[in-house]
Amino acid sequence: MDKATIVVHSGDLDKVMSALIIGNGYLAMGGEVTLYFTFWGLQRLIKGRLSKAPLSRMHFFGLGTWMMKRKMKKANVAPPEKLMADFKALGGRIIACEMTMEVMGISKSDLDETLIDEYGAVGMYVNESKKARMTLFI
Amino acid sequence: MDKATIVVHSGDLDKVMSALIIGNGYLAMGGEVTLYFTFWGLQRLIKGRLSKAPLSRMHFFGLGTWMMKRKMKKANVAPPEKLMADFKALGGRIIACEMTMEVMGISKSDLDETLIDEYGAVGMYVNESKKARMTLFI
Amino acid sequence: MDKATIVVHSGDLDKVMSALIIGNGYLAMGGEVTLYFTFWGLQRLIKGRLSKAPLSRMHFFGLGTWMMKRKMKKANVAPPEKLMADFKALGGRIIACEMTMEVMGISKSDLDETLIDEYGAVGMYVNESKKARMTLFI
Repeated sequence: MDKATIVVHSGDLDKVMSALIIGNGYLAMGGEVTLYFTFWGLQRLIKGRLSKAPLSRMHFFGLGTWMMKRKMKKANVAPPEKLMADFKALGGRIIACEMTMEVMGISKSDLDETLIDEYGAVGMYVNESKKARMTLFI
Repeated sequence: MDKATIVVHSGDLDKVMSALIIGNGYLAMGGEVTLYFTFWGLQRLIKGRLSKAPLSRMHFFGLGTWMMKRKMKKANVAPPEKLMADFKALGGRIIACEMTMEVMGISKSDLDETLIDEYGAVGMYVNESKKARMTLFI
Repeated sequence: MDKATIVVHSGDLDKVMSALIIGNGYLAMGGEVTLYFTFWGLQRLIKGRLSKAPLSRMHFFGLGTWMMKRKMKKANVAPPEKLMADFKALGGRIIACEMTMEVMGISKSDLDETLIDEYGAVGMYVNESKKARMTLFI
């Protein structure tokens, strides 16, 4: 079966959305997907923080986070919370990076544990990636 | 045949150039390449905007966009417009992300349509990526 | 044998560390890894500059470069210099991008030549990537 692994290193709203949109597309077409949340990306798994993030590029067309969300809503793009719910419903897997938790002082109870399938280190990610056809770093 | 797909999410000049340089190298060595322009990357397909972009990292060695272009010219690196023309001449394909067009209020007539092979959503990108050997997110 | 190629385009400390951590994990599990340092990434190969870099995202939890290093030390994460030494000891290969050297006016004697296996252009990277299973752009 086709498999994709995506490292979610960035915590920028637009990049996390890209990861979820690509992941959901891949799942919808019958593939398997694992997202490995690390560094700033892991902060998006803290309870209530998924969509509380800056954009990677501000001020283009005056698009800040608030404006972007408004425009996305108007264009019927699902918000981050819905993208994440769809990702889980479609069978997507999420690994939370234990090293990042330790460095940033984040405990399991800080995270939205309902989203997380496994807590692991880089070895777990590499192992999954060896079976993957598509590998991305976002 | 070897195939590569590259998501061009960033609109930063240096990253778009990296995408084109890698794409051209892959095409020149007999492979197939599809670039999927989305989010800030799509803005680079607006008429006249390809090289009107900031760098992802300013001030290193005082390199702003203008200085970078000047140094690149001196080092005989092709400018973005030439890299893009080469990409098309070598048979590279470009997909413009319809969701981004809708969110950012960009119409087909705003874009340089001579560069674009297809307008599509994430499903089109995923479908191409399933046949790809090299997959990058830039 | 499993093979990975990673383009290190970013010179941000956290991203270079991610590249090395993933690379070391891949090597430790019996794979081959080639890192292609280009654009801002190449600046990290200048003598003494590996860990003298900003983060891609500042101010989250007040984490600047100094604070990040301190927290990493406390969490027993190897510093960049150790990650790099491990990468080389495990047999990882490094290609320095000649185009970037020319554009930025960097000569071989500016670089830490003990780390570099080859000086090459995009063709060398593409050639390696054609044999790779995992391809990332960081």
